[in-house]
Amino acid sequence: MSTALQQHLEEVIGQIVAPADLYEAQARTHLDALTKPLGSLGRLEDLAAQWFTLRRGNVPDRISKSVYVFPADHGITAEGVSAYPSEVTRQMVLNFLSGGAAINVLARLNHVDVHVVDVGVDGDLAGHAGLAQCKVRRGSRNMLQEAAMSEEELTAAISIGLTMADAAFAKGDHLLAVGEMGIGNTTAASVMTAAITGTPASLVTGRGTGLDSAAYDHKCRIVDTVLRRHFAQPTNPREILRCAGGLEIAAMTGMMLGAARRQIAIVMDGFISTAAAAIACGIAPAVRSYLFAGHQSQEPGHRVLLAHLNLEPILDLHMRLGEGSGAVLAMPVLEAAMRLYQEMATFASAGISGASA
Amino acid sequence: MSTALQQHLEEVIGQIVAPADLYEAQARTHLDALTKPLGSLGRLEDLAAQWFTLRRGNVPDRISKSVYVFPADHGITAEGVSAYPSEVTRQMVLNFLSGGAAINVLARLNHVDVHVVDVGVDGDLAGHAGLAQCKVRRGSRNMLQEAAMSEEELTAAISIGLTMADAAFAKGDHLLAVGEMGIGNTTAASVMTAAITGTPASLVTGRGTGLDSAAYDHKCRIVDTVLRRHFAQPTNPREILRCAGGLEIAAMTGMMLGAARRQIAIVMDGFISTAAAAIACGIAPAVRSYLFAGHQSQEPGHRVLLAHLNLEPILDLHMRLGEGSGAVLAMPVLEAAMRLYQEMATFASAGISGASA
Repeated sequence: MSTALQQHLEEVIGQIVAPADLYEAQARTHLDALTKPLGSLGRLEDLAAQWFTLRRGNVPDRISKSVYVFPADHGITAEGVSAYPSEVTRQMVLNFLSGGAAINVLARLNHVDVHVVDVGVDGDLAGHAGLAQCKVRRGSRNMLQEAAMSEEELTAAISIGLTMADAAFAKGDHLLAVGEMGIGNTTAASVMTAAITGTPASLVTGRGTGLDSAAYDHKCRIVDTVLRRHFAQPTNPREILRCAGGLEIAAMTGMMLGAARRQIAIVMDGFISTAAAAIACGIAPAVRSYLFAGHQSQEPGHRVLLAHLNLEPILDLHMRLGEGSGAVLAMPVLEAAMRLYQEMATFASAGISGASA
Repeated sequence: MSTALQQHLEEVIGQIVAPADLYEAQARTHLDALTKPLGSLGRLEDLAAQWFTLRRGNVPDRISKSVYVFPADHGITAEGVSAYPSEVTRQMVLNFLSGGAAINVLARLNHVDVHVVDVGVDGDLAGHAGLAQCKVRRGSRNMLQEAAMSEEELTAAISIGLTMADAAFAKGDHLLAVGEMGIGNTTAASVMTAAITGTPASLVTGRGTGLDSAAYDHKCRIVDTVLRRHFAQPTNPREILRCAGGLEIAAMTGMMLGAARRQIAIVMDGFISTAAAAIACGIAPAVRSYLFAGHQSQEPGHRVLLAHLNLEPILDLHMRLGEGSGAVLAMPVLEAAMRLYQEMATFASAGISGASA
């Protein structure tokens, strides 16, 4: 079975294609004809052009949006890297399902459907209409001792993301936010970022949910030790994900690969989802055409990853929550860019004088 | 009549009161109890706290929003300070009224009512349901030759803003965006910013709607000459507005004073509306409690004004359009902050473990 999954993944990767340049040129010509000084909508023009391009000019009037939140636990929490106990992962899933978490509030406000996909929570969850039960394992392994996932676990987790992308495609979604919940996952993302970009541990490790100085120093040492253990030699993105990722990060990577294959736009959230995006782009560089960076997280490694991907965040509000919160918060800005593109009058249609030469 | 208007303005100013500190403390206590790591919503927490505070704890479930767009022409355009001819002001008003401008698209998307108030367009406009005809004069005077407004014209323009604030209050609006359209008005705002903050002309003058280098140098010289003509001696905010403002900037100042008196929150747009806000705060410092900075404009003087007012912008998307566009684009972020405050579960209500001490 694992071979079949692996084969399917390779087929998906082969079907991820970047859009042709002509759409970008067409978008810029249209943007320059709209009733505003040239370039005066700033980054909204870039967002609209990227949207038009990735959609190959086929822009829907009403944008259907979902957020997929992937919760999982992390074996590395045994080393005391988080301010919160692991059980909070499961408790927060219950909060997502009862509608009381930040992501629920933001999704309701912005008309975004919430899907929660358990890929690795260390605890039992009762059935719920809003929960997809796809647990691969009760948390990833302790990466200080061994690889975070076996080959089979990694492939299974990625495949869940592919399945979710297909479900979103079948449902008709145009725009997907990808988020997570996992006590300990900033440690995983820090190790991954250092391994992907070659940046020292101290520059990609942050305070997570709120470590004090002593606990922060301890976390930096753990990140550094894990790095030396698994990545003494450079390796490929998939192996970085397997050794230092987490089940939710692998599922997010799969979701991004699957969405890009279906030509669906993806809004990344913060540090963790951008680590997944960096792996997805490492595996299939054309994924980059489908990515929007929702916001700039307060985690220092996030800036490093965004620079690596050459992505500028839409929002910078000093957030560090996860759950997809920064991605869903950025959706109205992205939607505004698209609407401006579609609905503004042109100088010609409105009979307005141009600028002097 | 002008004396009656002046008397009314002084009454309004006397009724602008900052909220008590206790609301801010109450808001912070509530924010810290919500199911998220402490402070992890970043600036959204500050926005929510300011909202709760200015509303004195009385937060509505549904937020009623309007944008008021004040168009006016500027005598200083005779000096060749803009890339576009003055007639574009009137043409853009027609675009606002037919729904094809950027502000219309953004307002439709975000459920914001658009009100266009002609305080000084140099041209005739036919009656239209969406247009308030309050023309004080066909454009302000050429500030290179004389003050931009007479005492009477200034008072009349401010009073129109007060009237609009009362109309918004009567309609039940909770959140107001204040925007403008006026070829030549970045020159006015640059002079005002230099006069308010003592910053040299070259640091507060930008390329407006898109000047080339020679035209930009010319604009800087005009700003500097106007500054030396009117502000050889320091003067008060009202006099800065009269000599170097514009009819729309005066009306916006009035609207902000009137809204603050009614305890209505105001989202500023870019450089021009922030110049109006700086004057309003100069006249009545308590206005500051009601102000949100929608976005960071590309005009260099805007950064100077925001620092002067100690305000951080919500968005930074390299926009430089005006019309209230940056303010209305920021409204969903502000609304998200408020909804998170009202709708998130608490650690206690959701039964979630806290952080380790």
